[in-house]
Amino acid sequence: MRKIEHIGIAVKNIEESNMVFEKLFGQPPYKHEEVKSEGVKTSFFMNGPNKIELLEATSPDSPIAKFLEKKGEGIHHIAFDVEDICAEISRLKDEGFVVLNETPKKGADNKLVAFLHPKGTNGVLVELCQEIR
Amino acid sequence: MRKIEHIGIAVKNIEESNMVFEKLFGQPPYKHEEVKSEGVKTSFFMNGPNKIELLEATSPDSPIAKFLEKKGEGIHHIAFDVEDICAEISRLKDEGFVVLNETPKKGADNKLVAFLHPKGTNGVLVELCQEIR
Repeated sequence: MRKIEHIGIAVKNIEESNMVFEKLFGQPPYKHEEVKSEGVKTSFFMNGPNKIELLEATSPDSPIAKFLEKKGEGIHHIAFDVEDICAEISRLKDEGFVVLNETPKKGADNKLVAFLHPKGTNGVLVELCQEIR
Repeated sequence: MRKIEHIGIAVKNIEESNMVFEKLFGQPPYKHEEVKSEGVKTSFFMNGPNKIELLEATSPDSPIAKFLEKKGEGIHHIAFDVEDICAEISRLKDEGFVVLNETPKKGADNKLVAFLHPKGTNGVLVELCQEIR
């Protein structure tokens, strides 16, 4: 775990939220990307060594749609940058964490990703992410 | 806004949660600190250029006690590192954000801090923080 790669924020309307975060950071998103397999549209803002990802659901059974329904808008996950995601999954399993994706999957922004079950991390949805080389 | 300074996570029992996050990061917290004015005990973990702050309430009217009661354990706020907190408060007010502390207050870890109302930031409680020089 080398740094916070990004914070994911669930929003209802990504175009409106882009305007809010553009004002907050003083710069527009550097990227928009749809991840069809996850049922989301995303936008990414740079913030020094970190990023903020906004996520809007594109279908009612997207995990983001379910999160919004249950909890409303807000922080959805923290993603940590890892050098070797398979080694990190193995280390964390040995430490007793419940890894939701034993085989990493393709996420947004050219990353392999895996999630830890939030019950084992004080309610925080933790994502591991590794740049695809 | 130069980077994510830290993510604040509300927990019920900071000693137990320290053990979880020590396993996650492979290192213990570098600091424990009580902030009596906020009714919290905190611990801090380094993660590259970023930090994770765990927060346990020390009184029932602490903002963290109220958060736990309403939402349960999980991410409480994102803090962004700023060079000049007063200039940033002024800039964000001009942009239409609702600043909850027009005069910055003393936070944990040698910081001056101010919060933005989460209604203006998609449900995200944003903290500005500036190192006290």
